[in-house]
Amino acid sequence: MLKNYEIRKYQMPQEEIKALIKEKREELFCQQQLIKEHKLPVFVLIEGWGAAGKGTLIGNLIKELDPRFFRVINMDVPAEKNTRKPFLWRYMETIPEAGKFVFLDSAWLDETAEDVIKKRIDEETLEKRMQQIRTFDRQLKDNGYLVVKLFLQIPEEEQKKRLDKLMDTKDTKWRVAKKDIRQMEKRKQYEDVFDRILEATNTGYVPWNIVDAVDKKQALLQVLHILTNQINQAVENSKVLPEILHKDYPLLKMPKLSEVPLNQEMTKEEYQIQLKTLQKKLKKLHNKIYRKKVPVIIAYEGWDAAGKGGNIKRLTSALDPRGFEVHPIASPEPHEKARHYLWRFYHRLPKDGHIAIFDRTWYGRVMVERLEGFCSENDWKRAYNEMNEFEKELSDWGAVVIKFWVHIDKDTQLARFTDRQNNPEKQWKITEEDWRNREKWDVYEEAIDEMIAKTSTENAPWYIIQSNNKYYARIQAIQIVIDEIEKKLGNKRPL
Amino acid sequence: MLKNYEIRKYQMPQEEIKALIKEKREELFCQQQLIKEHKLPVFVLIEGWGAAGKGTLIGNLIKELDPRFFRVINMDVPAEKNTRKPFLWRYMETIPEAGKFVFLDSAWLDETAEDVIKKRIDEETLEKRMQQIRTFDRQLKDNGYLVVKLFLQIPEEEQKKRLDKLMDTKDTKWRVAKKDIRQMEKRKQYEDVFDRILEATNTGYVPWNIVDAVDKKQALLQVLHILTNQINQAVENSKVLPEILHKDYPLLKMPKLSEVPLNQEMTKEEYQIQLKTLQKKLKKLHNKIYRKKVPVIIAYEGWDAAGKGGNIKRLTSALDPRGFEVHPIASPEPHEKARHYLWRFYHRLPKDGHIAIFDRTWYGRVMVERLEGFCSENDWKRAYNEMNEFEKELSDWGAVVIKFWVHIDKDTQLARFTDRQNNPEKQWKITEEDWRNREKWDVYEEAIDEMIAKTSTENAPWYIIQSNNKYYARIQAIQIVIDEIEKKLGNKRPL
Repeated sequence: MLKNYEIRKYQMPQEEIKALIKEKREELFCQQQLIKEHKLPVFVLIEGWGAAGKGTLIGNLIKELDPRFFRVINMDVPAEKNTRKPFLWRYMETIPEAGKFVFLDSAWLDETAEDVIKKRIDEETLEKRMQQIRTFDRQLKDNGYLVVKLFLQIPEEEQKKRLDKLMDTKDTKWRVAKKDIRQMEKRKQYEDVFDRILEATNTGYVPWNIVDAVDKKQALLQVLHILTNQINQAVENSKVLPEILHKDYPLLKMPKLSEVPLNQEMTKEEYQIQLKTLQKKLKKLHNKIYRKKVPVIIAYEGWDAAGKGGNIKRLTSALDPRGFEVHPIASPEPHEKARHYLWRFYHRLPKDGHIAIFDRTWYGRVMVERLEGFCSENDWKRAYNEMNEFEKELSDWGAVVIKFWVHIDKDTQLARFTDRQNNPEKQWKITEEDWRNREKWDVYEEAIDEMIAKTSTENAPWYIIQSNNKYYARIQAIQIVIDEIEKKLGNKRPL
Repeated sequence: MLKNYEIRKYQMPQEEIKALIKEKREELFCQQQLIKEHKLPVFVLIEGWGAAGKGTLIGNLIKELDPRFFRVINMDVPAEKNTRKPFLWRYMETIPEAGKFVFLDSAWLDETAEDVIKKRIDEETLEKRMQQIRTFDRQLKDNGYLVVKLFLQIPEEEQKKRLDKLMDTKDTKWRVAKKDIRQMEKRKQYEDVFDRILEATNTGYVPWNIVDAVDKKQALLQVLHILTNQINQAVENSKVLPEILHKDYPLLKMPKLSEVPLNQEMTKEEYQIQLKTLQKKLKKLHNKIYRKKVPVIIAYEGWDAAGKGGNIKRLTSALDPRGFEVHPIASPEPHEKARHYLWRFYHRLPKDGHIAIFDRTWYGRVMVERLEGFCSENDWKRAYNEMNEFEKELSDWGAVVIKFWVHIDKDTQLARFTDRQNNPEKQWKITEEDWRNREKWDVYEEAIDEMIAKTSTENAPWYIIQSNNKYYARIQAIQIVIDEIEKKLGNKRPL
């Protein structure tokens, strides 16, 4: 892209350019209201060569904007804490809320190019990252985001001239980073790397915009044009439904819920003996994943009163409390609702070496949100693939991903509900809503069957926990967790 | 405290101890419901010598707890990112939500002792920190928190024995930290430091509990006793109103709002000339505070339609967008409401060298929350002192703290409201609520006078911005920001 890049210039006198800038700035100012009304989040990534003027450009862009409607974020080199998360984690953290702007000063292009030049990542990791970036862009787009990607281009001589000038005086010298000097020294090499990543992440849904940044006024005008046009387009296209994709992830053949036998027996004695052995084993594995920095993500879904809570407790009581966290998931809070629906789960991912247990999960999208109409049909239909992509990213990161559907039959639920209702100590566990949900058992069952069929991938399989007998269910779950962790540690292929 | 510490032991057979532990654990289990009902947040700090068994103790404490109701947090050595915040920032981040437990594995005692031993802080900083910790504890207590502080004590020989044993085999050697070895080598020195900090932070409202940790069962039982007792007490005392303190902060003599003249004039031309000069100056200062790592916090309050937004914009348009952030403050979200009311502001503090601008602030407590009855009388009366303490901590950290009341008179507000109402482009800026608030002008004015009188401290002064003429107001605000920053940089005393 940089190689074929032709310098574009507005062929008009300075005065006219100034007038146009003023006009476009006013347009951008008015668009603040527009994006607020349309709840459009606008995510602007500003990449480019060192000394290309990223900071100045951002300063000029926001000049007329209301500071309550935008954030500018300088993506520093990641601290140790952050690199213990998936690569895109810290970018996902910064995505704007509906109706607001976020301007990123350098982003994943810059970070990845550095990693390549410094040989911190291999070819395979690079390819995976570029795939993840494409997915990230597309998911944002499909979930109502406008993503604008800009690359500020200056020729080699121009960069050299600017850096020399900065280094010339003591007052400005500190602003030249080591990276800038490296870029000058290895310009050709950087050019190749930038080009490769730019091309690989230049998609129809979120294209790159190469900006000629030699003349600052020209560059500003170009960017104002791009930005205002894309905002207008995004608003216009906001009614266009995104395509529903089915990426070709290897799906496991799963039974329907109605085909799953629930007549398992287990005595308390047998349970206690097995539990002790398994908890001991799990404890040791926890130590091992901590040292090998393997993250583990365990997702719990299940019928009301199926015994999720007790099941989770038997798992966690084997674990070092400093190495796991349980995330109870309720309906999203306003700042969560204002972002991509996977954001709040992304936000809660464990550090590597740690375990995160989700008590209810992102699958709410294709169950309660689908059935109660909290999202559109296109939203939940798209979600199967989006969640597969999300989980693929997690396992590419090195995570063990396990999903449990804690299953009981209708009669067992009724018995447990009645028991809760009649037992003063347990009454808080049962609400009117539980009874209402129970009435919708059949539509839920259908949705769950579809969910399990469409999202049980090799790297993030669903397990149906047979929980009419709670003892059996607990042993089953803990055994699966052990097996999956051992599989990962032994690097064996999943069955 | 450690010096006078007498070993306490339950004088009873092992069997009885085990039975008691079981009993107390069940009590703790039931208390989960109790704290949930009473919305009591329980913050448990576990400090102590290396190898005293902190991890094991926590593991034993939570064994019966529902993992959805607690979090265990291991307070690692702070990463660079965090040390760019006030000392207590990362502890404030971890405080529990109402109705939940947080267990901290090591906290500010451990961190501070290390800093003293390694000579990373001087005497003055140490004294300030201990004062901050006392304030932190008291504020949490007053705001409905139960804070339980435990120190696990083992004698020198016991510590040595345990560490030697750990270092003996390869499997356990990695668990011995450098700090543990240092503690063994400098035991006497550590003892003195621990003692000093323990004594200085041992208050009537949040006392220390020294736990004899030689025998693990005995230690567990002691802690279970302490914890269950303190929870019962906290629930019992939840109706007792905290004392309303007025710490002796040097207050500035401030006029009443009615005494503030609002007849300033400024032409657009004059304004534009002055603005240009001042923005240039501020831009340079921004660079300087960035390099000197001075944090700046600017708090905006004011009447509806007083021109806060426009005022903020003229300030920020002079700033490098990568070095500031504007935080619009609306009513708190659920996860914010479930915590100490200052938490969400603490959370949004800038890194040092950065500027945070709050568009509405923590002073909502003594204005809207007071007048609309969103908090109790005791709550808002206590808040003046709490906010002074909060701001004192900020300036002790090195921050410039500036508070603006953007002031207009009633007629001017009416004129601007009417203008908004009649102008289609501005209509979104005016709501029914604005009109309702306007009716309460007089009670608000009284509350604001009280607020300004009680919280205009030398280190965090209020400035009344005279905003009938918006041009005048903008110049005034930007000039004050410049003056305050220059004062800090020049280390001059405030006027």
